[in-house]
Amino acid sequence: MSVYLHDIPLSEAQARLKQALQDANLWRVLAAETIPLDENALGRVTAAPIWAKISSPHYHASAMDGFAVRAVATHGALPSKPLTLQIGPEAAYVDTGDPLPDWANAVIPIENIESLDELGNLTKEIRNPISIRIRASITPWSHVRPLGEDIVATQLVLPAGHLLKPADLGAIAASGHQEIKVARKPRVAILPTGTELVPIGSKLKRGDILEYNSLVLAAQIKSMGGEATRYPITKDDFDLICERVQEAAESHDLILLNAGSSAGAEDFSSKVVEKLGTLLVHGVAVRPGHPVILGMINRQSGIENQKSETLTPDPSPLIPIIGVPGYPVSAALTVDIFVEPVIAQWLGRQPKVLPTETATLTRKIVSPPGDDDYVRVVVGKVGDKLLAAPLSRGAGVITSLVQADGLAVISRGTQGINAGEPVQVHLYRSKAEIERTIFCIGSHDLTLDLMSQFLAEQDRRLASANVGSQGGLIALRRDEAHLAGSHLLNPETGEYNISYIRQYMPGIPVKVVALVGREQGLLVKRGNPKGIQSLEDLRRSEVRFVNRQRGAGTRVLLDYHLNLMTISPEWIVGYSQEEYTHLGVAAAVASGRADCGLGITAAAQALDLDFIPLFKERYDLVFPKQFAESDLLLPLFGLLSDRRFREAVSQLKGYDVSVMGTIILED
Amino acid sequence: MSVYLHDIPLSEAQARLKQALQDANLWRVLAAETIPLDENALGRVTAAPIWAKISSPHYHASAMDGFAVRAVATHGALPSKPLTLQIGPEAAYVDTGDPLPDWANAVIPIENIESLDELGNLTKEIRNPISIRIRASITPWSHVRPLGEDIVATQLVLPAGHLLKPADLGAIAASGHQEIKVARKPRVAILPTGTELVPIGSKLKRGDILEYNSLVLAAQIKSMGGEATRYPITKDDFDLICERVQEAAESHDLILLNAGSSAGAEDFSSKVVEKLGTLLVHGVAVRPGHPVILGMINRQSGIENQKSETLTPDPSPLIPIIGVPGYPVSAALTVDIFVEPVIAQWLGRQPKVLPTETATLTRKIVSPPGDDDYVRVVVGKVGDKLLAAPLSRGAGVITSLVQADGLAVISRGTQGINAGEPVQVHLYRSKAEIERTIFCIGSHDLTLDLMSQFLAEQDRRLASANVGSQGGLIALRRDEAHLAGSHLLNPETGEYNISYIRQYMPGIPVKVVALVGREQGLLVKRGNPKGIQSLEDLRRSEVRFVNRQRGAGTRVLLDYHLNLMTISPEWIVGYSQEEYTHLGVAAAVASGRADCGLGITAAAQALDLDFIPLFKERYDLVFPKQFAESDLLLPLFGLLSDRRFREAVSQLKGYDVSVMGTIILED
Repeated sequence: MSVYLHDIPLSEAQARLKQALQDANLWRVLAAETIPLDENALGRVTAAPIWAKISSPHYHASAMDGFAVRAVATHGALPSKPLTLQIGPEAAYVDTGDPLPDWANAVIPIENIESLDELGNLTKEIRNPISIRIRASITPWSHVRPLGEDIVATQLVLPAGHLLKPADLGAIAASGHQEIKVARKPRVAILPTGTELVPIGSKLKRGDILEYNSLVLAAQIKSMGGEATRYPITKDDFDLICERVQEAAESHDLILLNAGSSAGAEDFSSKVVEKLGTLLVHGVAVRPGHPVILGMINRQSGIENQKSETLTPDPSPLIPIIGVPGYPVSAALTVDIFVEPVIAQWLGRQPKVLPTETATLTRKIVSPPGDDDYVRVVVGKVGDKLLAAPLSRGAGVITSLVQADGLAVISRGTQGINAGEPVQVHLYRSKAEIERTIFCIGSHDLTLDLMSQFLAEQDRRLASANVGSQGGLIALRRDEAHLAGSHLLNPETGEYNISYIRQYMPGIPVKVVALVGREQGLLVKRGNPKGIQSLEDLRRSEVRFVNRQRGAGTRVLLDYHLNLMTISPEWIVGYSQEEYTHLGVAAAVASGRADCGLGITAAAQALDLDFIPLFKERYDLVFPKQFAESDLLLPLFGLLSDRRFREAVSQLKGYDVSVMGTIILED
Repeated sequence: MSVYLHDIPLSEAQARLKQALQDANLWRVLAAETIPLDENALGRVTAAPIWAKISSPHYHASAMDGFAVRAVATHGALPSKPLTLQIGPEAAYVDTGDPLPDWANAVIPIENIESLDELGNLTKEIRNPISIRIRASITPWSHVRPLGEDIVATQLVLPAGHLLKPADLGAIAASGHQEIKVARKPRVAILPTGTELVPIGSKLKRGDILEYNSLVLAAQIKSMGGEATRYPITKDDFDLICERVQEAAESHDLILLNAGSSAGAEDFSSKVVEKLGTLLVHGVAVRPGHPVILGMINRQSGIENQKSETLTPDPSPLIPIIGVPGYPVSAALTVDIFVEPVIAQWLGRQPKVLPTETATLTRKIVSPPGDDDYVRVVVGKVGDKLLAAPLSRGAGVITSLVQADGLAVISRGTQGINAGEPVQVHLYRSKAEIERTIFCIGSHDLTLDLMSQFLAEQDRRLASANVGSQGGLIALRRDEAHLAGSHLLNPETGEYNISYIRQYMPGIPVKVVALVGREQGLLVKRGNPKGIQSLEDLRRSEVRFVNRQRGAGTRVLLDYHLNLMTISPEWIVGYSQEEYTHLGVAAAVASGRADCGLGITAAAQALDLDFIPLFKERYDLVFPKQFAESDLLLPLFGLLSDRRFREAVSQLKGYDVSVMGTIILED
């Protein structure tokens, strides 16, 4: 079965959609509407150029509080030779913004005059003296805002297609407008389909899938400047879906039909499009996002059903539809890739383009050569290097989008990119934000989550990649992180980390600080149904173990003890089944995928498992000296002696904070 | 009078405000509220960390449409040695997202199996064959999304203080939440005061000032994440203002009292603050923004009057007030400088920090050494150089904020920065936007406004600085613009521009293209009350002239003809009165500031003036060769042969488009 045999390149899919919209005369600003000029105009897009109706100021205005005079009448005034001007014919008080009398052409600021009374003596009367005395002459138009200083009637204030910011609203008002013509917000219908879907907040049973794509899609549409309608979930019923789509078509500008776009048995989307209109594309060579469907639906009423004035007289008999894949990451990226340019066109603004930077890839990415591949990455600056660390590539892993600082693009025609090679990254965050990111790599510990929360309060973002303790030290050697978490036991000395640091980071000065002491033990199901008591039980054939990956400190600890106990890994069912975090191990046990795994107390507590304590160990933070002394890391060191942080960590079961902050090694 | 004697440094003013808020226990997240998890949560800020309540997926889910199997049962299958599995005990159909049966631990994608009927023959039955045949073995957990692949219950999904983006909403939903605790929006009261103020849209009479600051301020507050209340205009009545402020204090978190903060007679703001509370600061050494007032007002009710749950038990008896200066640029920058950090604190997010780049200044900036000076600049990239061209520094010129790409900061202690020197610029626009900016300098022509509008449709921004024709050529020599508009007549040859280009840009290869032919003549008031007919009339002592600046093509033209006619500039009243644009000259005449000026037809038409045609001239665009061939300028060259653009220009009176696009010179 080659359902996606017809996958076409992304650029061709985009071109087909554009062509279909052009053919339907829909590749244009949809319509304009006139709205009042108030703060709700923020973020709207001008649908016509704004020309000034009036000038601003619309008269010669005083720029200061002072006295309006004729400049020529001040000639000859000197500090030693003051000159007196009579209020009335020669000088008139003006506040800032007041119009100049017709006869005046300059203003003397109030702080440069002396007020005189009828006797010619100094007085404190500011606005109504009898005369004023000056000790300097003034040039014409001094301290005057001439008519049109800001805006001259008829000038262009803003072009069409301009996204309105706060100051723009002021300039529009100043140029004599009280309404503004903006592009109507495109109306987008979002239709989630799938019998297995349940609304957010439902009590879940096995097989239920929370429907939150429509929420993410609606928020994306909103942030693009559109208006989304979230339809209720439609079950997998062809006629029902057709009915809903047809209904949505009458009152919207675009339909997003979510899920049902895979190759599976419930794949109605393409058939729905074929029945109600024309299928343009089914399957695009882009990852994630593959099973995208693009089409045009025929409207039944043939009217656009819009209340606001239209820019073109003919309402369209057609409306575009996009079959959005069901996986959340695919869904969100599909909308970014295909919908944003359309909404931009409909609003008359430029499409949003993410800034692009070249970064060094920390881990190899393999990519099918036929696809444009978008890989979510965390981006950080370590020393002078901008690094991109790939996140989970699973299309179902929405947290990878949450954590992503950008998208690395592996273009069609490329098989992948090796670690250490440059990669183009479209950035979600500003460079300034990225420069406040602390790159932490190595072993995972739950306290890092807490640390992340505390650091956020101090304008630092902790991005942690879990590659195990050894992997962390190797990454430090390659200048690919600011610090690494490590808990590597030296089986010969019983000491932690130092020998490994010397082995993996030869010649690199480091600072090593203890973070916590913690317990390692076996995680088992609540009630310990298989009666597991020690590593000895791993020999039992009915006990399924779940392991940590090679290089993880916990794996080293396990192997050390298995060796002491002369238990061969081959005897252990599931020894080759690897997880990358403590919580991953706990989840495997909680779900029944395994009966036990070695991990820390906190992980057992998190997933409500029983914990059989076996060993105590120390978890350290390792810093290359050059970063240990940087401003970036200052707040992190601060946390190690922060009472609130200590308390928060000690709330987690199985942690000993007495060692926190102890310097283990400083080169 | 030294009203601003007490101007204090910006950093001290900010510190005093922060201290006062800390003393009042208001330097914190104001309060949290629980809102439904829908698209309206976009842009809100989390008020507490979000921990996962459930795992996602919450069961082992099939990642593909296919058959769930036990991996061990597939061992031995080879292309040459297929293996048959019975539906029911050995294999079960699953759609993507379906839970795996308890006994299964892997999924074989549907495209990798052969469906068999009861006779063992191939069938097209996809979901319900009798058995399936496979030709490859599979490893455990292949094509399975294990429980917790995305989110493990109890993990940190998002920290507190996080600004919510679309994907975040999905992750929050996926982790089992249907509501979300966010920081309450700070409520900001905006009170415009001033007897001279009239609402937007009013029919204006001399002295009326359109009140649009409250609109800009409200939009700023909205974009910061607050909620603004715009109060109606209060006239300059001390008791009335006190009443309004006190009323606003009871139901808001911050009061912005706009205008009345200058040193003039209507300066009630500081007295209002002193009467109702404590004055912290009056006058800050920052430009624009000088007469800022900071204070704390006592609430009468003493209750915070908020419906939502509060984070701290004690409602504050105090509320901060900011006296915002009346000039629109000062007002907007005051809010950016003083309010944004407070709103950020109240929402628990990081303050917005504009990205900063170093640019080369194109024109000298002089700055009082005691002030932090924020100068609006247009930023563009010319060749490899990032350039910052200062805009009008008038605090009343709101269009300078509209046009600004950023703020150049001249720090306290610096007297100014010379042209060609580096300056730090806080950027409003992304680098990508700035790289699409075409820097045009030189003489001003109204067609440039039209060109700007047409270029905007093609993702180019035309930033034009008016420095006159000669100034433009000099700027090109210094690599400070992509093109210059020029209409410099050589009095000896009668030819335009070329001799000047050779003089001012020696050795630089250029391309010169004609833009338009146009008429120059005298702009006079409608009806020509002074009966002006030619340059001869400028000799008359009752005729007040307004001139263009030195180096302007129009000035060269004037001087050329004055010389021919042996009229000495000294005989002309207003010869030294300089304007920088045609519209500036027209505005001077329209307002009565001058009786006539030399300019183009379009300028007369724009301001409804009479026009006495005198000379015809050609207006050219001058491009250094290196830019003439750049992608950046391609759309501009396209316009020169664009029918729509030609038509639009020919609509303007006094323009001859027949020359448009003619190549005058190409090195």
